Amino acid sequence: MEHTKPVIAPTDPIRNEPGSRVELRVALGDRSYPIVIGAGVLDDAALWRSTGASVAVVVTNENVAPLYLARLCETLALAGKQVQVVLLPDGEEYKTWEILNRIFDALLEQRRDRKTCLVALGGGVIGDVTGFAAATYQRGVPFVQVPTTLLSQVDSSVGGKTAINHPKGKNMIGAFYQPLMVLADTGTLGTLPQREVLSGLAEVIKYGFIYDAVFLSWLEQHLDRLLARDAWTLTYAIQRSCEIKATIVAQDERETGIRAWLNLGHTFGHAIESGMGYGVWLHGEAVATGMVLAADLSHRLGHLDQASAARVRQLIDKAGLPTSAPRLGTAADARRYLDLMRVDKKAEGGAIRYVLLKRLGEAFVAAVPDGEVAPVIEASMNTSKAG
Amino acid sequence: MEHTKPVIAPTDPIRNEPGSRVELRVALGDRSYPIVIGAGVLDDAALWRSTGASVAVVVTNENVAPLYLARLCETLALAGKQVQVVLLPDGEEYKTWEILNRIFDALLEQRRDRKTCLVALGGGVIGDVTGFAAATYQRGVPFVQVPTTLLSQVDSSVGGKTAINHPKGKNMIGAFYQPLMVLADTGTLGTLPQREVLSGLAEVIKYGFIYDAVFLSWLEQHLDRLLARDAWTLTYAIQRSCEIKATIVAQDERETGIRAWLNLGHTFGHAIESGMGYGVWLHGEAVATGMVLAADLSHRLGHLDQASAARVRQLIDKAGLPTSAPRLGTAADARRYLDLMRVDKKAEGGAIRYVLLKRLGEAFVAAVPDGEVAPVIEASMNTSKAG
Repeated sequence: MEHTKPVIAPTDPIRNEPGSRVELRVALGDRSYPIVIGAGVLDDAALWRSTGASVAVVVTNENVAPLYLARLCETLALAGKQVQVVLLPDGEEYKTWEILNRIFDALLEQRRDRKTCLVALGGGVIGDVTGFAAATYQRGVPFVQVPTTLLSQVDSSVGGKTAINHPKGKNMIGAFYQPLMVLADTGTLGTLPQREVLSGLAEVIKYGFIYDAVFLSWLEQHLDRLLARDAWTLTYAIQRSCEIKATIVAQDERETGIRAWLNLGHTFGHAIESGMGYGVWLHGEAVATGMVLAADLSHRLGHLDQASAARVRQLIDKAGLPTSAPRLGTAADARRYLDLMRVDKKAEGGAIRYVLLKRLGEAFVAAVPDGEVAPVIEASMNTSKAG
Repeated sequence: MEHTKPVIAPTDPIRNEPGSRVELRVALGDRSYPIVIGAGVLDDAALWRSTGASVAVVVTNENVAPLYLARLCETLALAGKQVQVVLLPDGEEYKTWEILNRIFDALLEQRRDRKTCLVALGGGVIGDVTGFAAATYQRGVPFVQVPTTLLSQVDSSVGGKTAINHPKGKNMIGAFYQPLMVLADTGTLGTLPQREVLSGLAEVIKYGFIYDAVFLSWLEQHLDRLLARDAWTLTYAIQRSCEIKATIVAQDERETGIRAWLNLGHTFGHAIESGMGYGVWLHGEAVATGMVLAADLSHRLGHLDQASAARVRQLIDKAGLPTSAPRLGTAADARRYLDLMRVDKKAEGGAIRYVLLKRLGEAFVAAVPDGEVAPVIEASMNTSKAG
C-alpha cells in the first residue's frame, strides 16, 4: 500500500519569536484537540478552565514529581479543580498491568466518576499508561497530556496512541484514545539529562527523514544549537515535529495507512529495546540505529541512493546517537532480530513489513524477505564499536 | 438531562414466519454492523466470507464448548478461515484481568497480527471479555459476537460495551468497541437452563418498560408461550429487543444521554449482585428486582401511577423472577445498598442517579437523594419471602 504525501507549508521559523507560545490543532472531527507549546504553559490556569471536569487526577512519577508536581497542582487549584495525585515508579519496566491497576485502585478508592479528568505529567511511559487508564476507566474518561521530556513532547503525547507492555511484546495492549489537550512546556527540558534530550532528538530528526526535506536541512544546520539546548531552536524543532505528526494523524488516526511512516526505524528499534532488555538502550537511541538500518535496507533494495543513506547515518552520528546494531546474542547473527520483529505489530500475515525511505523527506511501507534484511543487520553489527 | 423518545415503528410480528431469519442493522456510520437472528445461523458459512480476516480465534468457555464449538469451527473452516480456540472457565467471577490475559497470551504465542478476528462464543461474560480483548489487543482487532444465551442475545452482544470487573466494582475497566457482526442462533436457547432463560427475559421485559408500551402488552399476552420457549415467540421477542437496543445505541453510542435508559434496574441490580457476591443472583434476577425498586421509586417521587408500578411488579412476578430486595447485611437496612451504588458508574459528582419511569414505555434519568431511596429499599426488603 503506497501513500501520497500531502503538501503542507512549513511554518516560517522567523515568525516564532523567543518566548512566544505556539498553538497547533490536531484535526480529528469531534475528537480534535489543541497542542500548546511554550515556556511556562505549565503555570497557565486559563488553559484548564475550558475543561469541564471538576476533579483532576494527576498521574506522575517519582522523578518528575519533585520538579513540577507542586506547580501543576497550584495551577489546577487556581483553575478551580479538586486535585488527586497518583505517584508511580519511574521506568519503561513499569509500563505494566500492575502499575496501570494502581491508577484504577486510586480512582476507585475515591469513587471517581466518568467526569474525572486524568492528567499525565511526565514522559512517554506516564503518558502511555495514563492514556490507557483514561481510555478504559469506566469505558473512557477525559485526559490531558503534560509531557515533560523532548521525546514525549514531539512524539508520544500527540496522536492518541496509548498502551502498556506485555511480557511478550512492547505496546501489545492498548487503545487509540485522544487527549483533551496537550501542554508542552519547553521550560521542563532544562532539567532533562543530555542522553534524554538526544533520545528525543532522534524522533525530531525522523520527521525530516519521512516527511520534510526542508526541515531536515534546517536540522543539519541547527544541530549544534539544538545540542546546546538553545530555547528558540528547541521550540521550533518541537513545533515543526508536532505539526508534521498532527498532519499525519489527522489523515490516518488508526494507522491503516500513512501513519505507519511514523514507525521509521521502530521495527528494528523495538527489537533492540526488547532484545537488550527494556531500559538498557533508550527508545530514541534504538530508533536512531533503527533508522540507519532502514536507510541501509532502502539503499540495498534500490530505493535510496548511497549519498542519502550516508546523510542519514551522518546526522544521527553527529547528534551523538548510536548508528550500529548491537549484538542481541553471542554471535553477530540477525536471527534474534528477525524473531523479535516478527511478533511486532508491524508483522501482518507472517511477512515483516518495514518503513523504508523512497528519498529523504518521503517514506513508504513494504514487506521485505528476511534474506534481504539479515545482511543489513549483520553488516551493521560488524561495524559496531562495542562488537 | 431529559431525552425525547424517537418514534420507531415496531416490526409487525405477523411477518416473522416460523424458521425465518431476521437481519437488523445497528447504524453507527463506519462502525455499523448487522445482527442476524434465527435458528441455524451458527452453521451458515456464507455469513463469514464477508469478514476479511484469514484467522479466526474463537474464545469460549467449558460449558458452551461441548455444545457448539465443533459446529462453529466447521463453519469457519468451510468459510476458509484458519481457526484457533481459547477455552476459558465459566462464570462472572472469571471476568478478570487474569482471564483476559489468557486471551492475550494465546494471541501472542501464535504471533497473531492486527488482522486476526476474535469470535466470542458464549454468554455475556465471554462477550464482554472477548470484546475488551479485541478492543485492546494491539490497539484493536475485529471481532464477532456469537451469543448463546437469551441474556446476551437481547442485551450484551449488541451495542459495543465491553469490560472486565475490578475487585471494587463491576465493569469498571472496559471500552466502547463495536463488533463486525452479531450472530444470534435461537437454536442455542434449547439447551439453556430455565433460570438462565428467565434471567434473559428480565432484559426483554425491560425494553417494554423503558421504550415500547405496545411490546409490553404483547409480552404480557405471550408470557406463557415465552416461558414454554415457543420458537416463534422467542424469536420475535429477541428481534424486537434488538431493534429497540439498536435504535437507542445508534442515537447515543457512548452513553451520554438516552442510552442510560437501558440501565433501568441496573443500579439497584449491581448492588444486589456485588452485595450478594457475584453469581449468587443471576444478572437478570438482580435487574428484575432492581426494576421493581425503580418503579416503586418512580411512584414514590410522583412520576408513575400506582397501577403502572403494580403492573411492573406483576409481570416480573408472573415471569418467575424475584421482586423483593434481598438483605445485604444482617439488618433490613438500606445503607449497604447506597454504599454499593455510590461507586457504580451512574454516580456522577457524588449524587446517585437512577433510571426512573415516566410512564410504562418511557424512562428518564434523575439524581435522587438517599433519603427518598432508602425507604423504598427497606419496604422491599420487608416484603421479601426469604427475609
